[in-house]
Amino acid sequence: MSVIVRVNMTDKKISTFENQDYRMLGGRALSAKILLDEVTPNCEPLGPKNKLVIAPGLLSGTPITSGSRTSCGAKSPMTNGIKEANCGGNIGLYLGRFGVKAVVIEGQPADGNLYVLKIGKDGASLVTIEDLKLLGTYETDRRLRAKFGQDIGVLCIGPAGENGMKMASIASSDPNGELKFAARGGLGAVMGSKGIKAVVVDRTLQQPLYHNKEQYMDMVRNIHTEFRKDPKIKNVNQKTGTASIVKAVNAMGALPTRNFRQGAIAGVDGLSGETMYATITNRGGDGKTGVSCMDGCLIKCSNIYPDASGKKICSTLQYENIALLGSNLGFTNLDPVAKLNHECNDIGLDTIEAGAVLGVAIDMGMAQWGDLDGCVALLQEIRNNTLVGRILGHGVQVAGSVLGSKRIPAAKGQSFAGYDPRALKGNGVTYAMSPMGADHTAGNCFGSRGEVNPLGVDKQGDLSKSLQYKMCALDSLGFCIFARPPLFKDPSKMTTLVNALLGTDLSVDQLWQVLGVDAVRTEREFNIRSGLSPANDKLPEYLYVEPLPPTNEVFNLPEEEMLRAIV
Amino acid sequence: MSVIVRVNMTDKKISTFENQDYRMLGGRALSAKILLDEVTPNCEPLGPKNKLVIAPGLLSGTPITSGSRTSCGAKSPMTNGIKEANCGGNIGLYLGRFGVKAVVIEGQPADGNLYVLKIGKDGASLVTIEDLKLLGTYETDRRLRAKFGQDIGVLCIGPAGENGMKMASIASSDPNGELKFAARGGLGAVMGSKGIKAVVVDRTLQQPLYHNKEQYMDMVRNIHTEFRKDPKIKNVNQKTGTASIVKAVNAMGALPTRNFRQGAIAGVDGLSGETMYATITNRGGDGKTGVSCMDGCLIKCSNIYPDASGKKICSTLQYENIALLGSNLGFTNLDPVAKLNHECNDIGLDTIEAGAVLGVAIDMGMAQWGDLDGCVALLQEIRNNTLVGRILGHGVQVAGSVLGSKRIPAAKGQSFAGYDPRALKGNGVTYAMSPMGADHTAGNCFGSRGEVNPLGVDKQGDLSKSLQYKMCALDSLGFCIFARPPLFKDPSKMTTLVNALLGTDLSVDQLWQVLGVDAVRTEREFNIRSGLSPANDKLPEYLYVEPLPPTNEVFNLPEEEMLRAIV
Repeated sequence: MSVIVRVNMTDKKISTFENQDYRMLGGRALSAKILLDEVTPNCEPLGPKNKLVIAPGLLSGTPITSGSRTSCGAKSPMTNGIKEANCGGNIGLYLGRFGVKAVVIEGQPADGNLYVLKIGKDGASLVTIEDLKLLGTYETDRRLRAKFGQDIGVLCIGPAGENGMKMASIASSDPNGELKFAARGGLGAVMGSKGIKAVVVDRTLQQPLYHNKEQYMDMVRNIHTEFRKDPKIKNVNQKTGTASIVKAVNAMGALPTRNFRQGAIAGVDGLSGETMYATITNRGGDGKTGVSCMDGCLIKCSNIYPDASGKKICSTLQYENIALLGSNLGFTNLDPVAKLNHECNDIGLDTIEAGAVLGVAIDMGMAQWGDLDGCVALLQEIRNNTLVGRILGHGVQVAGSVLGSKRIPAAKGQSFAGYDPRALKGNGVTYAMSPMGADHTAGNCFGSRGEVNPLGVDKQGDLSKSLQYKMCALDSLGFCIFARPPLFKDPSKMTTLVNALLGTDLSVDQLWQVLGVDAVRTEREFNIRSGLSPANDKLPEYLYVEPLPPTNEVFNLPEEEMLRAIV
Repeated sequence: MSVIVRVNMTDKKISTFENQDYRMLGGRALSAKILLDEVTPNCEPLGPKNKLVIAPGLLSGTPITSGSRTSCGAKSPMTNGIKEANCGGNIGLYLGRFGVKAVVIEGQPADGNLYVLKIGKDGASLVTIEDLKLLGTYETDRRLRAKFGQDIGVLCIGPAGENGMKMASIASSDPNGELKFAARGGLGAVMGSKGIKAVVVDRTLQQPLYHNKEQYMDMVRNIHTEFRKDPKIKNVNQKTGTASIVKAVNAMGALPTRNFRQGAIAGVDGLSGETMYATITNRGGDGKTGVSCMDGCLIKCSNIYPDASGKKICSTLQYENIALLGSNLGFTNLDPVAKLNHECNDIGLDTIEAGAVLGVAIDMGMAQWGDLDGCVALLQEIRNNTLVGRILGHGVQVAGSVLGSKRIPAAKGQSFAGYDPRALKGNGVTYAMSPMGADHTAGNCFGSRGEVNPLGVDKQGDLSKSLQYKMCALDSLGFCIFARPPLFKDPSKMTTLVNALLGTDLSVDQLWQVLGVDAVRTEREFNIRSGLSPANDKLPEYLYVEPLPPTNEVFNLPEEEMLRAIV
């Protein structure tokens, strides 16, 4: 049976335990359950009572494509409720192979040292590596690889996490030496508050224990065959990745533009996935598309975006960052977006929150629209932990209140993602009602725009609800959102995998229930006990009165419709 | 019957209404009921849906001593829950005489103008007086008196309120041309958000309608006779005022010292009430003690504190400010305290919150202990609405989080008053459990130190609970805390007054119930609906682990004891 590793940072004791109740849980669902079981919900997020849970998805470590994502979970300093953010990279794969179901980091060191948690075939240990202090994520990752081996899995934080910034992310190393991010909710600050700069997991070829390996591998082959045949993966995902939707969201009028004052931007072509692909291809050099963020992934939606000379600016340029760091800041060219994106990555910042906070900062006169130098200068304030940086680094809710903004694009203290709720109302429901706060991965209604009118009132609550728990199930299995179409079309594929791995007899309904509905309800219960009561399930008032060009829509869903989205 | 004046700042319409349900309510109880009846509890505190209620106490306008205080109430930008803060001055007296039970200011002007609400015998009207913009409270008050008459009652805000600072207070003019403050919870920012710089009420000799005036006046004479005979009023209240307790709190080890790191300060004599009285008396000039803050008050606890040349520095120097702006900032001399106090008054800041925020700022390296120039400079940042000022001006919870402090002395987002909960545990209970957040007027256990051991565990919950609702009744009647002893000794004095005024048949039990228990429960209900659920009834974690010298106590009350304090 898989074990849970407990790392107590107060006394530096490391132990392991098993819990039969957690058997069918993984990733987000497991993280939620451990947090509800072990953490005082109304504790201080950056204090010793909070815990950071690192939980690979239930299928992590197996060869199923796009299925070894890693959930990070804790009480969030950003929302004050529960938070889960998951990322690619190889660490989930290795943890799964080692039979580690989760790592629970608790307590707080009194010594002020910065630790690296090292996990390998000989177990787990804490190492102090002093010269990592305040290093950016890329240099941290580079040094850890140099010390422990190029093929390790790494989770690490940048200066933002060490400095307790509420918008600090956790970076995860991928097989190309690039980084992916468990970005949202300030989990990097929680990691920093534990005195942990990085978690390093050795590469291993060890395999998880299968109840019925043959049956499992049959289904893996079945799914992989389907993926290989899917023209969308080759023609869209591997070329434009998530950025394929830029023009579509702009056409809907839901693209965050100039601090959510508009839903479309003139010159959107300069930001499109098509332009991104052409630019990467034309510039060559370091530039690449079709890159996988974990071993064995067939989707390969990552990329490396180079400058005109072919030198890498950023990896990976993707939709949310193009929206929040691009149109939302008045840019219509991908180069500045890539520069800001890389800077956020290196500081260890949630790019979505960073884009939202820069949008408000520009609106309040701290820089100009489309002003790369101004934006870079503000990010440097965050990196350098100055007073200005400390205002901005805590995210858009804190910064907006401090600056006196009346237009703060946030729900439950966390910034909107790349969809204005006025022109994609279902996402407004998810932002308000999900236990995760405003989060595009918690139930994104964009993909359902053909079924439910994005501007209509009807069915938004039901749509959000169903996506909320289904996405949670996907997060709990360790699957990427891009793996969704074939799995949601025939969910028995997922139950076959789980049953073959664990020897269970899970039905599709039970799968949605246990890894979806129950998990979201666990999160909601945590929130209620943490003080984030249902009265916090709301959107900012300006959305209800300020029409959003070009649709000139306001957010107008009645409360009954919102309440239908409670899972 | 008395009327409620409704002032809609969106369309500038003023109307009046009566409500039989509000007949027995006044001050804090009335404010709470109107807010629960009319305000969406989870609205944005500085948005158009919040309302500011100005409600004189139930007995206001009558000649009873110390009984015409005015409650200001709203959803608080500081706590995000309901808030009431009351003040002396003559405005409650005049409103009561005019038969105005409350003024409800709602909506928000789109024009960006700054208004004065003028109330007199010809009714209420809105006047624009542009040159008041960003003026300090003293100059604002001076200009309004020059324009409308020296004997008017004024409520006004300073630059902090106009700038939406969460620690903005509301100033109230007293008969001596000095100001009193409805200080806590950021109600000045709510007033500013309504575009109201001041409320001016003409002096009137009109009398309220008495059901039985003779009976009322008999009881007034009875109480006044008792007050005139009370040696404590003459020998303590009129000399040292609230500052009489400085040495006693220091001796208990509960005096906030250097950002709540100690509970006593060497050199406390320099801050004592006795030193204050001697200094005022010796320096002469503008200096005065035994000053009343409203016509007809027999207690006269106010003072004017002069500098060595006899020129006024500040009015009124009192205990909470001496604690928070004095020992908490490392001062052992009253002159710098008086200077900081006056500066806060003029900017329109809650002095308690300002002292707490300066304490954290000093702790985080922004000034030195006992550093008058450094503290004045930080207050100027608030006055000038700079970025630093905007961090500090939102109070200790926001400033402490932004600055990264791990020791934020606040409950429900509001700073502790002048009693460290570790050495006066009953006040810790009140800070945590009262709907008002950390507030010394919501149930201060200091006066009961002879009955309940301040360092003990037992009876703290019950003590806090009983004081919470009894103080609420006092606030609702319009009485000053200093009037408490004779009234609490024989509460039938209060019911006799209410019954003679209104023609009711209220028993003592009903008085406590209606104006005390029910009112606090109304506030709690508002908080729960606002999102400030019971999970927010808590104290910061550092109090449970950091011993407070010299008693070396931590806060150690079990949850059961805290829960007993729920009214």
